[in-house]
Amino acid sequence: MKLIIAIVHDDDAGELISSITEKGYGVTKLATTGGFLKAGNTTLLIGVQKEKVDEVLDIIRDVCKTRKGIVSPPAPIIGGTGVYVPAPVEITIGGATVFIIDVDRFEKI
Amino acid sequence: MKLIIAIVHDDDAGELISSITEKGYGVTKLATTGGFLKAGNTTLLIGVQKEKVDEVLDIIRDVCKTRKGIVSPPAPIIGGTGVYVPAPVEITIGGATVFIIDVDRFEKI
Amino acid sequence: MKLIIAIVHDDDAGELISSITEKGYGVTKLATTGGFLKAGNTTLLIGVQKEKVDEVLDIIRDVCKTRKGIVSPPAPIIGGTGVYVPAPVEITIGGATVFIIDVDRFEKI
Ligand code: NI
Ligand code: NI
Ligand code: NI
Repeated sequence: MKLIIAIVHDDDAGELISSITEKGYGVTKLATTGGFLKAGNTTLLIGVQKEKVDEVLDIIRDVCKTRKGIVSPPAPIIGGTGVYVPAPVEITIGGATVFIIDVDRFEKI
Repeated sequence: MKLIIAIVHDDDAGELISSITEKGYGVTKLATTGGFLKAGNTTLLIGVQKEKVDEVLDIIRDVCKTRKGIVSPPAPIIGGTGVYVPAPVEITIGGATVFIIDVDRFEKI
Repeated sequence: MKLIIAIVHDDDAGELISSITEKGYGVTKLATTGGFLKAGNTTLLIGVQKEKVDEVLDIIRDVCKTRKGIVSPPAPIIGGTGVYVPAPVEITIGGATVFIIDVDRFEKI
Protein backbone atom coordinates (compact mmCIF):
# COMPACT_ATOMS: atom_id res chain seq x y z
CA MET A 1 0.00 0.00 0.00
CA LYS A 2 1.19 3.51 -0.85
CA LEU A 3 -0.04 6.91 0.17
CA ILE A 4 0.05 9.49 -2.60
CA ILE A 5 0.15 13.08 -1.36
CA ALA A 6 -0.65 15.30 -4.33
CA ILE A 7 -0.51 19.09 -4.09
CA VAL A 8 -2.42 20.51 -7.03
CA HIS A 9 -3.93 23.82 -8.10
CA ASP A 10 -7.43 24.51 -6.86
CA ASP A 11 -8.64 24.85 -10.46
CA ASP A 12 -7.72 21.24 -11.13
CA ALA A 13 -8.83 19.69 -7.85
CA GLY A 14 -12.48 19.08 -8.72
CA GLU A 15 -11.76 17.34 -12.01
CA LEU A 16 -8.93 15.33 -10.47
CA ILE A 17 -11.10 14.11 -7.60
CA SER A 18 -13.80 13.05 -10.07
CA SER A 19 -11.33 11.21 -12.29
CA ILE A 20 -9.70 9.39 -9.38
CA THR A 21 -13.03 8.48 -7.80
CA GLU A 22 -14.39 7.15 -11.10
CA LYS A 23 -11.46 4.75 -11.23
CA GLY A 24 -12.45 3.47 -7.80
CA TYR A 25 -9.70 4.98 -5.68
CA GLY A 26 -10.39 6.70 -2.38
CA VAL A 27 -9.32 10.31 -2.19
CA THR A 28 -9.41 12.80 0.67
CA LYS A 29 -9.24 16.53 0.06
CA LEU A 30 -7.40 18.64 2.59
CA ALA A 31 -8.15 22.30 2.78
CA THR A 32 -7.09 24.95 0.42
CA THR A 33 -4.68 27.69 1.28
CA GLY A 34 -4.58 31.10 -0.32
CA GLY A 35 -7.35 33.52 -1.02
CA PHE A 36 -9.52 34.31 -3.97
CA LEU A 37 -7.12 36.24 -6.14
CA LYS A 38 -4.01 34.27 -5.27
CA ALA A 39 -5.35 30.92 -6.43
CA GLY A 40 -4.44 28.37 -3.81
CA ASN A 41 -3.42 24.78 -3.66
CA THR A 42 -5.34 21.72 -2.67
CA THR A 43 -3.68 18.73 -1.06
CA LEU A 44 -5.11 15.30 -1.83
CA LEU A 45 -4.42 12.05 0.01
CA ILE A 46 -4.88 8.96 -2.14
CA GLY A 47 -4.34 5.46 -0.81
CA VAL A 48 -3.55 2.88 -3.49
CA GLN A 49 -2.08 -0.54 -3.97
CA LYS A 50 1.60 -0.36 -4.96
CA GLU A 51 0.91 -1.59 -8.50
CA LYS A 52 -1.68 1.16 -9.08
CA VAL A 53 0.61 4.11 -8.35
CA ASP A 54 1.49 4.64 -12.00
CA GLU A 55 -2.14 4.61 -13.07
CA VAL A 56 -2.96 7.34 -10.54
CA LEU A 57 0.12 9.34 -11.58
CA ASP A 58 -1.10 9.16 -15.19
CA ILE A 59 -4.45 10.61 -14.12
CA ILE A 60 -2.71 13.41 -12.23
CA ARG A 61 -0.52 14.15 -15.27
CA ASP A 62 -3.55 14.27 -17.56
CA VAL A 63 -5.61 16.58 -15.36
CA CYS A 64 -2.88 18.78 -13.91
CA LYS A 65 -0.45 19.19 -16.79
CA THR A 66 0.87 22.74 -16.99
CA ARG A 67 -0.70 24.76 -19.78
CA LYS A 68 -1.24 28.35 -20.79
CA GLY A 69 -4.33 30.17 -19.61
CA ILE A 70 -5.74 33.64 -20.12
CA VAL A 71 -6.82 35.76 -17.19
CA SER A 72 -9.26 38.50 -18.10
CA PRO A 73 -9.01 41.43 -15.72
CA PRO A 74 -12.20 41.63 -13.71
CA ALA A 75 -13.41 45.06 -14.85
CA PRO A 76 -12.49 48.06 -16.97
CA ILE A 77 -10.94 51.00 -15.15
CA ILE A 78 -12.77 54.29 -15.51
CA GLY A 79 -10.36 57.21 -15.39
CA GLY A 80 -10.51 60.96 -16.08
CA THR A 81 -9.85 60.50 -19.79
CA GLY A 82 -12.18 57.60 -20.52
CA VAL A 83 -12.50 53.90 -19.96
CA TYR A 84 -9.31 51.84 -19.90
CA VAL A 85 -9.72 48.12 -20.62
CA PRO A 86 -6.68 46.20 -19.30
CA ALA A 87 -5.36 43.52 -21.65
CA PRO A 88 -5.92 39.85 -20.77
CA VAL A 89 -2.80 38.29 -19.27
CA GLU A 90 -1.36 34.92 -20.26
CA ILE A 91 -0.41 32.76 -17.29
CA THR A 92 0.81 29.23 -16.72
CA ILE A 93 -1.68 27.08 -14.83
CA GLY A 94 -1.71 23.51 -13.61
CA GLY A 95 1.22 21.53 -12.28
CA ALA A 96 1.41 19.24 -9.29
CA THR A 97 3.84 18.17 -6.61
CA VAL A 98 3.49 14.51 -5.71
CA PHE A 99 5.00 12.59 -2.80
CA ILE A 100 4.60 8.82 -2.73
CA ILE A 101 4.99 7.35 0.72
CA ASP A 102 5.17 3.76 1.86
CA VAL A 103 2.32 2.71 4.14
CA ASP A 104 3.26 0.34 6.96
CA ARG A 105 -0.27 -0.65 7.66
CA PHE A 106 -3.70 0.29 6.38
CA GLU A 107 -6.98 -0.12 8.23
CA LYS A 108 -10.52 0.43 7.02
CA ILE A 109 -12.83 0.74 10.02
CA MET B 1 7.73 6.25 16.06
CA LYS B 2 4.73 6.00 13.79
CA LEU B 3 2.46 8.61 12.26
CA ILE B 4 -1.18 7.63 12.17
CA ILE B 5 -3.20 9.48 9.54
CA ALA B 6 -6.87 8.90 10.35
CA ILE B 7 -9.64 10.15 8.08
CA VAL B 8 -12.88 10.14 10.06
CA HIS B 9 -16.36 11.58 9.82
CA ASP B 10 -16.79 15.09 11.21
CA ASP B 11 -19.42 13.82 13.62
CA ASP B 12 -16.85 11.59 15.29
CA ALA B 13 -13.88 13.93 15.25
CA GLY B 14 -14.59 15.79 18.49
CA GLU B 15 -15.07 12.68 20.59
CA LEU B 16 -12.08 10.97 18.99
CA ILE B 17 -9.80 13.93 19.68
CA SER B 18 -10.94 13.98 23.33
CA SER B 19 -10.40 10.24 23.75
CA ILE B 20 -6.95 10.32 22.18
CA THR B 21 -5.89 13.40 24.14
CA GLU B 22 -7.08 11.88 27.43
CA LYS B 23 -4.77 8.94 26.81
CA GLY B 24 -1.89 11.39 26.48
CA TYR B 25 -1.30 11.22 22.73
CA GLY B 26 -0.76 14.32 20.65
CA VAL B 27 -3.25 14.84 17.86
CA THR B 28 -3.48 17.48 15.13
CA LYS B 29 -6.72 18.16 13.32
CA LEU B 30 -6.49 19.10 9.67
CA ALA B 31 -9.37 20.93 8.10
CA THR B 32 -12.65 19.56 7.10
CA THR B 33 -13.83 19.30 3.54
CA GLY B 34 -17.42 19.40 2.45
CA GLY B 35 -20.11 21.81 3.36
CA PHE B 36 -22.77 21.99 6.01
CA LEU B 37 -25.31 19.57 4.59
CA LYS B 38 -22.86 17.14 3.02
CA ALA B 39 -21.10 16.17 6.24
CA GLY B 40 -17.41 16.15 5.57
CA ASN B 41 -14.35 14.33 6.75
CA THR B 42 -11.70 15.34 9.21
CA THR B 43 -8.11 14.19 8.91
CA LEU B 44 -6.18 13.64 12.12
CA LEU B 45 -2.42 13.27 12.51
CA ILE B 46 -1.39 11.26 15.56
CA GLY B 47 2.23 10.60 16.43
CA VAL B 48 2.77 7.54 18.64
CA GLN B 49 5.40 5.10 19.73
CA LYS B 50 5.33 1.92 17.64
CA GLU B 51 4.02 -0.19 20.52
CA LYS B 52 1.07 2.17 21.08
CA VAL B 53 -0.36 1.93 17.58
CA ASP B 54 -2.81 -0.81 18.50
CA GLU B 55 -4.09 1.11 21.50
CA VAL B 56 -4.84 4.12 19.31
CA LEU B 57 -6.46 1.92 16.67
CA ASP B 58 -8.71 0.50 19.38
CA ILE B 59 -9.80 4.00 20.34
CA ILE B 60 -10.53 4.83 16.70
CA ARG B 61 -12.53 1.62 16.33
CA ASP B 62 -14.57 2.39 19.45
CA VAL B 63 -15.42 5.95 18.50
CA CYS B 64 -15.75 5.62 14.73
CA LYS B 65 -17.37 2.21 14.30
CA THR B 66 -20.01 2.27 11.59
CA ARG B 67 -23.52 2.29 12.94
CA LYS B 68 -27.03 3.18 11.89
CA GLY B 69 -28.29 6.70 12.40
CA ILE B 70 -31.55 8.49 11.73
CA VAL B 71 -31.64 11.76 9.85
CA SER B 72 -34.77 13.78 10.46
CA PRO B 73 -35.58 15.99 7.50
CA PRO B 74 -35.14 19.61 8.56
CA ALA B 75 -38.72 20.83 8.05
CA PRO B 76 -42.14 19.78 6.83
CA ILE B 77 -43.01 20.69 3.28
CA ILE B 78 -46.12 22.84 2.85
CA GLY B 79 -47.91 22.08 -0.42
CA GLY B 80 -51.24 22.93 -2.01
CA THR B 81 -53.01 19.98 -0.39
CA GLY B 82 -51.64 20.33 3.13
CA VAL B 83 -48.49 19.77 5.10
CA TYR B 84 -46.24 16.86 4.05
CA VAL B 85 -43.87 15.55 6.74
CA PRO B 86 -41.03 13.59 5.13
CA ALA B 87 -40.13 10.34 6.88
CA PRO B 88 -36.85 10.16 8.81
CA VAL B 89 -34.16 8.39 6.80
CA GLU B 90 -31.84 5.68 8.13
CA ILE B 91 -28.22 6.17 7.18
CA THR B 92 -24.90 4.53 7.98
CA ILE B 93 -22.55 6.80 9.89
CA GLY B 94 -19.05 6.47 11.24
CA GLY B 95 -16.18 4.58 9.66
CA ALA B 96 -12.55 5.59 9.29
CA THR B 97 -9.67 5.19 6.89
CA VAL B 98 -6.34 4.85 8.66
CA PHE B 99 -2.83 4.95 7.24
CA ILE B 100 0.07 4.08 9.52
CA ILE B 101 3.38 5.49 8.34
CA ASP B 102 6.87 4.93 9.59
CA VAL B 103 8.56 8.05 10.96
CA ASP B 104 12.27 8.39 10.20
CA ARG B 105 12.82 11.03 12.78
CA PHE B 106 10.72 12.98 15.24
CA GLU B 107 11.57 16.35 16.75
CA LYS B 108 9.76 18.30 19.43
CA ILE B 109 10.93 21.92 19.34
CA MET C 1 13.94 12.77 -0.58
CA LYS C 2 12.24 13.43 2.74
CA LEU C 3 8.89 14.90 3.62
CA ILE C 4 8.94 17.14 6.67
CA ILE C 5 5.55 17.52 8.34
CA ALA C 6 5.83 20.46 10.74
CA ILE C 7 3.00 21.41 13.07
CA VAL C 8 3.61 24.96 14.28
CA HIS C 9 1.70 27.74 15.95
CA ASP C 10 -0.26 30.01 13.66
CA ASP C 11 1.69 33.00 14.93
CA ASP C 12 4.90 31.52 13.56
CA ALA C 13 3.60 30.11 10.30
CA GLY C 14 3.96 33.23 8.17
CA GLU C 15 7.56 33.90 9.15
CA LEU C 16 8.46 30.23 8.83
CA ILE C 17 7.00 29.97 5.33
CA SER C 18 8.95 33.10 4.28
CA SER C 19 12.19 31.78 5.72
CA ILE C 20 11.83 28.36 4.12
CA THR C 21 10.80 29.81 0.76
CA GLU C 22 13.75 32.23 0.76
CA LYS C 23 16.08 29.26 1.10
CA GLY C 24 14.49 27.79 -2.02
CA TYR C 25 12.48 24.97 -0.48
CA GLY C 26 8.90 24.27 -1.48
CA VAL C 27 6.38 24.47 1.33
CA THR C 28 2.65 23.76 1.40
CA LYS C 29 0.44 25.15 4.14
CA LEU C 30 -2.44 23.02 5.29
CA ALA C 31 -5.34 24.66 7.02
CA THR C 32 -5.46 25.93 10.48
CA THR C 33 -7.58 24.43 13.18
CA GLY C 34 -8.95 26.26 16.17
CA GLY C 35 -10.79 29.52 16.32
CA PHE C 36 -9.85 33.11 16.89
CA LEU C 37 -9.31 33.11 20.63
CA LYS C 38 -7.84 29.64 20.91
CA ALA C 39 -4.88 30.22 18.60
CA GLY C 40 -4.57 27.24 16.33
CA ASN C 41 -1.89 25.25 14.64
CA THR C 42 -0.73 25.23 11.09
CA THR C 43 0.63 22.12 9.42
CA LEU C 44 3.33 22.57 6.81
CA LEU C 45 4.53 20.01 4.27
CA ILE C 46 8.12 20.56 3.14
CA GLY C 47 9.81 18.31 0.63
CA VAL C 48 13.61 18.34 0.82
CA GLN C 49 16.65 16.38 -0.19
CA LYS C 50 17.83 14.11 2.62
CA GLU C 51 20.98 16.16 3.21
CA LYS C 52 18.95 19.37 3.65
CA VAL C 53 16.76 18.13 6.50
CA ASP C 54 19.01 19.59 9.19
CA GLU C 55 19.10 22.97 7.51
CA VAL C 56 15.30 23.10 7.48
CA LEU C 57 15.14 21.90 11.09
CA ASP C 58 17.48 24.76 12.04
CA ILE C 59 15.12 27.24 10.39
CA ILE C 60 12.15 25.75 12.25
CA ARG C 61 14.07 25.92 15.55
CA ASP C 62 14.98 29.57 14.94
CA VAL C 63 11.48 30.71 14.07
CA CYS C 64 9.42 28.47 16.35
CA LYS C 65 11.53 28.29 19.50
CA THR C 66 9.38 28.50 22.60
CA ARG C 67 9.53 31.86 24.32
CA LYS C 68 7.56 33.96 26.73
CA GLY C 69 4.88 36.29 25.44
CA ILE C 70 2.49 38.75 27.02
CA VAL C 71 -1.20 38.65 26.26
CA SER C 72 -3.01 41.89 27.00
CA PRO C 73 -6.64 41.29 27.84
CA PRO C 74 -8.79 42.77 25.09
CA ALA C 75 -10.70 45.34 27.16
CA PRO C 76 -11.21 46.68 30.66
CA ILE C 77 -14.19 45.33 32.54
CA ILE C 78 -16.67 47.94 33.76
CA GLY C 79 -18.34 46.87 37.01
CA GLY C 80 -20.56 48.46 39.63
CA THR C 81 -17.61 49.80 41.59
CA GLY C 82 -15.55 51.19 38.72
CA VAL C 83 -13.36 50.04 35.88
CA TYR C 84 -11.29 46.89 36.40
CA VAL C 85 -8.24 46.53 34.14
CA PRO C 86 -7.16 42.87 34.04
CA ALA C 87 -3.40 42.34 34.27
CA PRO C 88 -1.52 41.18 31.17
CA VAL C 89 -0.84 37.44 31.29
CA GLU C 90 2.49 35.80 30.51
CA ILE C 91 2.18 32.76 28.25
CA THR C 92 4.56 30.41 26.50
CA ILE C 93 4.36 30.65 22.73
CA GLY C 94 6.07 28.92 19.86
CA GLY C 95 7.11 25.30 19.73
CA ALA C 96 6.76 22.79 16.90
CA THR C 97 6.14 19.11 16.38
CA VAL C 98 8.07 17.74 13.42
CA PHE C 99 7.76 14.37 11.68
CA ILE C 100 10.34 13.45 9.06
CA ILE C 101 9.12 10.81 6.65
CA ASP C 102 10.94 8.93 3.95
CA VAL C 103 9.64 9.57 0.43
CA ASP C 104 9.59 6.57 -1.89
CA ARG C 105 9.18 8.61 -4.97
CA PHE C 106 8.76 12.25 -5.81
CA GLU C 107 7.19 13.67 -8.97
CA LYS C 108 6.97 17.25 -10.14
CA ILE C 109 4.30 17.51 -12.86
NI1 NI D 1 -2.26 28.30 -9.14
NI1 NI E 1 -20.19 11.26 6.84
NI1 NI F 1 -0.56 28.35 20.29
